[in-house]
Amino acid sequence: MRILGIDPGLGICGFGLIETTSRAGAKALDYGAVTTEVDAPIPSRLRELYESLMQVFEECRPEMVAVEKLFFSKNITTGIVVAEARGVVLLVAALKGLPVYEYSPNQIKLSLAGYGAATKTQMEEMVRVHLGLDVKPKPDDAADALAVAITCSFLYQRGGEEKYKFSNSRK
Amino acid sequence: MRILGIDPGLGICGFGLIETTSRAGAKALDYGAVTTEVDAPIPSRLRELYESLMQVFEECRPEMVAVEKLFFSKNITTGIVVAEARGVVLLVAALKGLPVYEYSPNQIKLSLAGYGAATKTQMEEMVRVHLGLDVKPKPDDAADALAVAITCSFLYQRGGEEKYKFSNSRK
Repeated sequence: MRILGIDPGLGICGFGLIETTSRAGAKALDYGAVTTEVDAPIPSRLRELYESLMQVFEECRPEMVAVEKLFFSKNITTGIVVAEARGVVLLVAALKGLPVYEYSPNQIKLSLAGYGAATKTQMEEMVRVHLGLDVKPKPDDAADALAVAITCSFLYQRGGEEKYKFSNSRK
Repeated sequence: MRILGIDPGLGICGFGLIETTSRAGAKALDYGAVTTEVDAPIPSRLRELYESLMQVFEECRPEMVAVEKLFFSKNITTGIVVAEARGVVLLVAALKGLPVYEYSPNQIKLSLAGYGAATKTQMEEMVRVHLGLDVKPKPDDAADALAVAITCSFLYQRGGEEKYKFSNSRK
């Protein structure tokens, strides 16, 4: 099963493609991040993001997509822009006809590290170990995207996909 | 000048096309709302919105687009979905190569009614009078979209477009 994880963002949007193996493990097939021009107007940047993601999806040919859920914390203005970018991410997945699963940062930490207060460094190390990589994937956004893809592989294999699949609870 | 106003939303997204006249007035050429299926997953609904808006833009052939700014108030969860839908609205405008202007609810009320605390009924009446319509435009989302288009026509004609144009202050 080829799963494309996405860590949504406008300035930088991480992606990570994994393939699950028969041993309930997974290997990284591709990962990286797409960026948009900081000085351009937001609509132009959303178009840049859209075009880059369409290319990523075409090259990666995933069977399902896993996207990190958005939580607003300190900066609500940044949050709006991230949500707008996230709308484009979900749109691209839908245009490609792919099922989308979403996971909260807490679910991702629980799945990979076993507890919700895992640090960024611990999470990156878990991603590296789980995928059998020699070094931590860079940039951070790609590591985050791989983490959400791995979470999806865990929960999907455990039959937990229905619970976490995109629902309409967020009306 | 043909200005397409948009009141962003996922369940219902209002649009209103106006044409400015030489007398600093404006007439309504078209208005309405596109809707998405409430029970469908969010990514599918964003695709529906995208496809409907592409059609609206093709039929309306605007020269510029005016979009209401998003403010989070009570329901932050609803706000995330609206921002995701707004990302699709801005994307469609950018794909069509159109300049996008954005206005806060307060700016729109000040422009049309002269004070920021104008009620919804007062605003709808100002839209009706300004566009010389016999009845208030329906649904409400279309009236809101016409209001943002009228605001754009006022501020653009006053040379205030640069001030309100999409900036990168929202990084």
